[in-house]
Amino acid sequence: MRLVIALGGNAMTGADGSARPEEQRAAVIAAVEAVADLVAAGHEVVLTHGNGPQVGNVLLKNELAAHAVPPVPLDWCGAQTQATIGMLVLNAADDAFTARGLSVRTAALVSRTLVDVDDPGFTRPTKPIGRYASAEEAARMVEHGQHWKEVTGRGWRRVVASPEPLECLDIAAVEVMAAAGYVVVCSGGGGIPTVRTDEGYVGVEAVIDKDLSAAILADQVKADALVIATDVEAAVVGWGTPHARPLGETTATQMRELAAEGHFAAGSMGPKVEAVTRFAERTGRTGVITALASIEDAVHGRAGTRVVPS
Amino acid sequence: MRLVIALGGNAMTGADGSARPEEQRAAVIAAVEAVADLVAAGHEVVLTHGNGPQVGNVLLKNELAAHAVPPVPLDWCGAQTQATIGMLVLNAADDAFTARGLSVRTAALVSRTLVDVDDPGFTRPTKPIGRYASAEEAARMVEHGQHWKEVTGRGWRRVVASPEPLECLDIAAVEVMAAAGYVVVCSGGGGIPTVRTDEGYVGVEAVIDKDLSAAILADQVKADALVIATDVEAAVVGWGTPHARPLGETTATQMRELAAEGHFAAGSMGPKVEAVTRFAERTGRTGVITALASIEDAVHGRAGTRVVPS
Repeated sequence: MRLVIALGGNAMTGADGSARPEEQRAAVIAAVEAVADLVAAGHEVVLTHGNGPQVGNVLLKNELAAHAVPPVPLDWCGAQTQATIGMLVLNAADDAFTARGLSVRTAALVSRTLVDVDDPGFTRPTKPIGRYASAEEAARMVEHGQHWKEVTGRGWRRVVASPEPLECLDIAAVEVMAAAGYVVVCSGGGGIPTVRTDEGYVGVEAVIDKDLSAAILADQVKADALVIATDVEAAVVGWGTPHARPLGETTATQMRELAAEGHFAAGSMGPKVEAVTRFAERTGRTGVITALASIEDAVHGRAGTRVVPS
Repeated sequence: MRLVIALGGNAMTGADGSARPEEQRAAVIAAVEAVADLVAAGHEVVLTHGNGPQVGNVLLKNELAAHAVPPVPLDWCGAQTQATIGMLVLNAADDAFTARGLSVRTAALVSRTLVDVDDPGFTRPTKPIGRYASAEEAARMVEHGQHWKEVTGRGWRRVVASPEPLECLDIAAVEVMAAAGYVVVCSGGGGIPTVRTDEGYVGVEAVIDKDLSAAILADQVKADALVIATDVEAAVVGWGTPHARPLGETTATQMRELAAEGHFAAGSMGPKVEAVTRFAERTGRTGVITALASIEDAVHGRAGTRVVPS
């Protein structure tokens, strides 16, 4: 089977969510071990990943050094995390495949995701990003054209556009590499947000949800399944109540009803559910939410939340 | 012809050498226009690039924010510049090829360069990098394991290893993309310095000379010519004297003699001359040093310094 696997932020950082280099490296090695088992079992894998903690760090460095070094925009920060995570995956994958006697190779592509220049997110940004700051600091950044919002009890935080991903612009390169038998890493951090203007393609300051962009990617590469890898075995309804139960095979229609009832937290399980549901609706194939170690079972119908077309 | 073209730092920054984002973008667009003309003329192009000003900026951000954000090592900084420059090249190339009615596509690979863990550079680092600092600051960084040297009259500056590039580790992916007709961007900033250890591949803190790694790359992809693109038409002997004269076709043996006589400045024309000379010696093919706009003439023997095997 051809699988698009989306690794979450938890799979790329230390247990406490921090993103120190050695912790990132150890986390990537662990994640890639699970991917290598899937490749050894005969699956074709296209890999994508989140970058929340990493891009937060890069962004903060930009701000703290802005008096001495020209800051780079948010799309550049996202690009930077594609390369550092990509490099870690390349090293880990070469080692994991060699250890399994496999000659499979891996390629990490710098890759862009097309968004609509008129996406409502650009005029009404809602996605919180980076550190909390004082009202004075926030006011200064607003003067520089940024949007900041107060979070009661915690201070002010920058909000940015999180536009709908429309298309992986580098999909043809992904196809070439996948057809040559490569594990391909792409659309990291949701892909570098890019708009089409009269002057051509230009990066824009935004953050793209990596699960939603994974759904686009999985559709474009005609994946047999989209797998959102997370730190739980399955999506759960009634989370935190005595009636909590994990979801197994579920239709897209049922998922939409459960989502409308508020079962899935925004910014957490919400976008994962939206991504697998969209994939099932658009392609008629299966979207899976499960833990890394359960992917093989999940794609064979024995584990995880499996969203099928209704 | 298959050409490996190495773009210098001057081709990726503003006229004053600064690396503000909009200046980098404008410089990349200009460089890619020249590359697109070569592709339109029927050449296959593998593109590599320097990252001196860019990696200096990333490194300085790390230092200035170290109290708040875990700094990333130098190899990570280099990786980050591959993605930002790669993204700019992708956007510029898509636009430049479309404008010429070409369906040629471009891929930017996160790519690593193998170096020897026993390279003498690691015990005796010599490559200056980043900003100048006070003796006190330098002493503090030395306590953290870094090497710093005093530069008379300017203060202290960090020195890092500049190990010999041995092999582009991601060459197979480059070959796949090039064979599929892609312009491939790889080994940016000399490639991410990587060593082979008992535990597998690991990035190391070092800076690889991008011209020397371009010579390795050109050898590995069996390029018909290695082209070091710079801001002058040709290498010059007797630079700054009344006897200054540009070099045209020159044998590798002659180049080695001229280099030994001190005609080429270390850290500037020196590594470019070394790179094209090595390429000619190893492959029997031609190494070229010239300006971006003169590449087509140079590969046809009508411009630039062309180093041929002796």
